[in-house]
Amino acid sequence: MKIFNFPMTYPTTAGTDIIDITGNVAEKVREAGINEGQALISVPGSTASITTIEYERGGVRDLLEALERLAPVGIAYRHDARWGGGNGYAHVRAALLGPSVTIPVAGGRLVLGTWQQLVLVDFDNHPRQRRIFLQISGL
Amino acid sequence: MKIFNFPMTYPTTAGTDIIDITGNVAEKVREAGINEGQALISVPGSTASITTIEYERGGVRDLLEALERLAPVGIAYRHDARWGGGNGYAHVRAALLGPSVTIPVAGGRLVLGTWQQLVLVDFDNHPRQRRIFLQISGL
Amino acid sequence: MKIFNFPMTYPTTAGTDIIDITGNVAEKVREAGINEGQALISVPGSTASITTIEYERGGVRDLLEALERLAPVGIAYRHDARWGGGNGYAHVRAALLGPSVTIPVAGGRLVLGTWQQLVLVDFDNHPRQRRIFLQISGL
Repeated sequence: MKIFNFPMTYPTTAGTDIIDITGNVAEKVREAGINEGQALISVPGSTASITTIEYERGGVRDLLEALERLAPVGIAYRHDARWGGGNGYAHVRAALLGPSVTIPVAGGRLVLGTWQQLVLVDFDNHPRQRRIFLQISGL
Repeated sequence: MKIFNFPMTYPTTAGTDIIDITGNVAEKVREAGINEGQALISVPGSTASITTIEYERGGVRDLLEALERLAPVGIAYRHDARWGGGNGYAHVRAALLGPSVTIPVAGGRLVLGTWQQLVLVDFDNHPRQRRIFLQISGL
Repeated sequence: MKIFNFPMTYPTTAGTDIIDITGNVAEKVREAGINEGQALISVPGSTASITTIEYERGGVRDLLEALERLAPVGIAYRHDARWGGGNGYAHVRAALLGPSVTIPVAGGRLVLGTWQQLVLVDFDNHPRQRRIFLQISGL
């Protein structure tokens, strides 16, 4: 069994960013040379998540609107009352969506649908250099 | 370490289907002969998810109603405006629930609760032959 | 490759409990002596979930309020109509949040953000001895 760790960094803007990371992850899978195994993509941090979506402008906007219904930016958050920062909504969204996703690798490739992309969802309200952590393991 | 890949297919109907896949996954765990490790169950596609629930008619209906509150079928989705198809709600639901779940295997068995079942949740609005990908790995 | 299983138990109270389990998980990672690999934390059961959050009183309350919007305690659930128990909301919440989370281990440590904690979220409406199952694997 082999295990490879790939820390990666994405610049994000203010407000919820949804960034397609599929190409970078697929490239690291090839680089790792794993045939069968898995790619664990995780975000160390409490204001971002990883998920998958068909990455096209319409669906991405639809997801943003659903997140706004789930944990609106404009309501009162106790996190903000205690600590300021105004990103209470981001903490709630990240806890609901979760910090990591695992995708199987088979035949040397990520097992994803044709129209399915891996995305980093950064909820935070200021620009960041967002670190994610990709671990590829297998045979 | 051994890794086994099991592609599986389930016929689904129009509208959100919640299908109990526990028996099939458990059978493949026995077939793989893994004692300690994990079962990664994933859906290659952007309109379905994997999760767990007590699989009884009441709770399944409750989950469907919660999904309807989270991303209603009847509202306007930009995905539909751009691409048609009318399954914009399915894309949003799948992104929120996520594409995969990992369950530990110990003593040769899936570590699940007595009343906990693994389910494929297919959100799409037309019948499909839905493929899922089960990867069992361990010692 | 080595695999270690750690069943753990947490006492919970009535109503949704959010319990910081980071310290216990980190301790088991050290005990396992894994350098590179992963920690799979799962809940065998259908009324609890695992996720991560910045564990401070404000954000924890915000998450509880969001869960209450997502699947309110006070509405009618078919699960309750059929089986009684009054924890229909707990089943729905657990299915939406999911039963497990995987966190990478690198350099012998959990890869988490500075302000990110692993939490057990127990939705059930009566006190329990809640079992979780931690599996640490790697090299």
